[in-house]
Amino acid sequence: MSFIEKLAAIVGPKGLITDEKDMGGFLTEWRDKYQGKALAIALPDSTEQVAEIVRLCAETGTPIVPQGGNTGLVGGSIPFDGGDELILSLRRMNKVRDVDAGSGTLTVDAGCILADLQKVAEEHGFMFPLRIGSEGSCQIGGNISTNAGGVQVLHYGNTREQVLGIEAVLPDGQVWDGLTSLRKDNTGYDLKQLFIGAEGTLGIITGAVVKMYPRPRYQQVAMIAIPDPAAAVSFLGLARRLSGDQVTAIELIPRIAIDLVVRHVPDFTDPMPAPYDWQILVELSSSATPDLKGLMESILEEGFEAGVVLDAIIPDSIAQQERLWMLREEISGAQKPEGGSIKHDISVPVSKIPDFIKAADEAVDKVVPGFRPVTFGHIGDGNLHYNPLQPVGMDKQEFLGKWEEVSRTVHDIAASFRGSISAEHGIGRMKKNDLPRYKQAVEIDMMRKIKAALDPQGIMNPGKVLPDETNGSKTGGVA
Amino acid sequence: MSFIEKLAAIVGPKGLITDEKDMGGFLTEWRDKYQGKALAIALPDSTEQVAEIVRLCAETGTPIVPQGGNTGLVGGSIPFDGGDELILSLRRMNKVRDVDAGSGTLTVDAGCILADLQKVAEEHGFMFPLRIGSEGSCQIGGNISTNAGGVQVLHYGNTREQVLGIEAVLPDGQVWDGLTSLRKDNTGYDLKQLFIGAEGTLGIITGAVVKMYPRPRYQQVAMIAIPDPAAAVSFLGLARRLSGDQVTAIELIPRIAIDLVVRHVPDFTDPMPAPYDWQILVELSSSATPDLKGLMESILEEGFEAGVVLDAIIPDSIAQQERLWMLREEISGAQKPEGGSIKHDISVPVSKIPDFIKAADEAVDKVVPGFRPVTFGHIGDGNLHYNPLQPVGMDKQEFLGKWEEVSRTVHDIAASFRGSISAEHGIGRMKKNDLPRYKQAVEIDMMRKIKAALDPQGIMNPGKVLPDETNGSKTGGVA
Repeated sequence: MSFIEKLAAIVGPKGLITDEKDMGGFLTEWRDKYQGKALAIALPDSTEQVAEIVRLCAETGTPIVPQGGNTGLVGGSIPFDGGDELILSLRRMNKVRDVDAGSGTLTVDAGCILADLQKVAEEHGFMFPLRIGSEGSCQIGGNISTNAGGVQVLHYGNTREQVLGIEAVLPDGQVWDGLTSLRKDNTGYDLKQLFIGAEGTLGIITGAVVKMYPRPRYQQVAMIAIPDPAAAVSFLGLARRLSGDQVTAIELIPRIAIDLVVRHVPDFTDPMPAPYDWQILVELSSSATPDLKGLMESILEEGFEAGVVLDAIIPDSIAQQERLWMLREEISGAQKPEGGSIKHDISVPVSKIPDFIKAADEAVDKVVPGFRPVTFGHIGDGNLHYNPLQPVGMDKQEFLGKWEEVSRTVHDIAASFRGSISAEHGIGRMKKNDLPRYKQAVEIDMMRKIKAALDPQGIMNPGKVLPDETNGSKTGGVA
Repeated sequence: MSFIEKLAAIVGPKGLITDEKDMGGFLTEWRDKYQGKALAIALPDSTEQVAEIVRLCAETGTPIVPQGGNTGLVGGSIPFDGGDELILSLRRMNKVRDVDAGSGTLTVDAGCILADLQKVAEEHGFMFPLRIGSEGSCQIGGNISTNAGGVQVLHYGNTREQVLGIEAVLPDGQVWDGLTSLRKDNTGYDLKQLFIGAEGTLGIITGAVVKMYPRPRYQQVAMIAIPDPAAAVSFLGLARRLSGDQVTAIELIPRIAIDLVVRHVPDFTDPMPAPYDWQILVELSSSATPDLKGLMESILEEGFEAGVVLDAIIPDSIAQQERLWMLREEISGAQKPEGGSIKHDISVPVSKIPDFIKAADEAVDKVVPGFRPVTFGHIGDGNLHYNPLQPVGMDKQEFLGKWEEVSRTVHDIAASFRGSISAEHGIGRMKKNDLPRYKQAVEIDMMRKIKAALDPQGIMNPGKVLPDETNGSKTGGVA
């Protein structure tokens, strides 16, 4: 039997795509930044099928690209051009296996759509706190493999913090059933942590146990004008202290972002009473404090006295509160009509945010004089969307031609504050060869040693995450 | 130069103990369960000194036992009898290197005493949530290396959740400076997770960045009578939901535990209005809800209606609340005058607690008819102190002679609920050879591969955590 025939015998006709014209969506990143070719797409519907496929690939030395909802931004789920890789899609493994309300846990297939999982949690009176733009199509296995972030990380943590146990198929085809739902277990190395965020380079996550949380009964949002980004950091400290740690989101929004939304998105007016340079969108959530508006007002009062609050609007209705969140969400799209925008996904220690913004603005202005900084995002996590927008009147392509130079500049400055060049999106293909510039050699060396120890053949998502070696090897080995 | 002379040249006269009569406290576990011999005790006062020592040991193949406050319970920090191991104590590296109030982080030497670290956090208006009995002498490096737990895990998580970055000396003497304080960083494998809980078998943690939290302004404790352990699980769900997740502790306390404290500890009277079989000690903490007593009352009201609450006392004064916590803390000591007690540190999924207690009570009674179950602890984490107490009138030594059989019985039952045989204390020497019974072979195999990849010479705390191989090798290699 040929490789394809053996595959077909494992997954059946519904589980295999070999015709290139049917592979489209699996081969292309949704922003069209990455494209590749594949030997075939395998769509197993059980952990045992995944294990059989991996054993077949281990025997034949066939590289595997594990794929969830394919909503990533760094090319981690897209094969290369060689056409020798097998895409293993988890989309048919999409069931919630178990709900344990007493323990507050869900056991799920890796291919569960995030929104479906959120819905099941809600049906049982809980919530699952991972909230990201792609939640309607991304899969929990992909969220775990990339340690996804989102708007509620400040309060609930990254995906890593939501995972109690995983089931994974290892590079030799063995199944590791680590589906524990324990809150405490100190019996050796916490191996699941290696697989979380490994982008499929150490094995294929096929199932997981995740935490659910009580759903907050009350929420209150406010848009608050502040003198400068440093005031946002001070305000966060104040608000966390006075609210009993019930701040569930804090987003930095500059004047230009509001102007762009008002200019380019229909039916939006400026919510602020005056054109302040900087504002923060703050959300409090609680089940125990019905008068969150009163709490917000008392926090603002202390903020005024401390000189970190200039003005604020506290909407009464839920509709008005949602409107403020919509304004925040429209910022990304509102930059487009203004020309080229160079995106970054950086993080720095929270207290270094003001210094980072100042240093980056100055340095980028030397590369592209007159550029417009559109700097917004999750300041509570030290995570900013630092998106230089082209100067008015400059040619878009000329501006975008500076991408590498601008990015290098911004990343170097983030690194100078011990920051990260990829806070949320991962490494994939996009940033793997930046790692030697920003990570210690000893750390990359440990990564290679672990990769070689667990995947000695190098068949799991080769050419991703680990930097290319100077000898040209794609997957890396012990250095 | 001899090995000892070379050591002396690195650490100076203050940093070296070679006389066996001065080694006492380093060679013995505080409960006298483990004792060993050492070549010498090295007490470096800087990361660079630690690195030089490890390089010397790597050259000479000398095994190293890293040691923090030596407060462990499983023999992880005690050398074996051979006298060929070097103890590397971190106690002279005890400084707080940096406080970053804006980011809510502390950067500390590994040898910082936990209580000192808590104090520094408090001086800056924060709190560090790790609270354990040994906090006056244990060190943060040891807490991280063992992923310590404690009474506030329910709300704040284990030590693992408090660590943002670590600095470690690797088995070849290289220094990995992973002292990042980022809340989000997806740039490759999260290597620090491997070192957390590894009990010093992969390298020596020399520094860390840990999180601080806002200190709650209000607290309210209640002692609540419940019909059975299942009601505790239901009450926890109710209380988390109604309080907005402000339950910071919930401890299960059986009738016998109160009786023992009243009988053996001076000045304690029974706080309960009637002799209920089971109670829970519940603590709410908040900065935003001044009337926590009112909140507690409304939660209790719903609990009465749901049939999970029988009675309750809600003390007004802080002194009375502290008295209830003292009763809880006296339970361990109050068992001693009653004879032999066989200790366990198990965890199961929270919802399985009632089934575990029932099954374990029945099974242990078959081994020791008439034994008295003293079952208490952190039910919110699924973590129980399951301590069978000898039957009245039985010979103590005869009862303790059943330790192995009772433990095997209890651990098998925990495992049947996918529980853990070591929720908090780790593996060390004590439980390493139980792992093959309770962990999948594939998981132990991964642990061995990682150990071999990062410590190929096997010089880091050999003979700990990893089970002995059947061929007699002490440190394990690639299986």
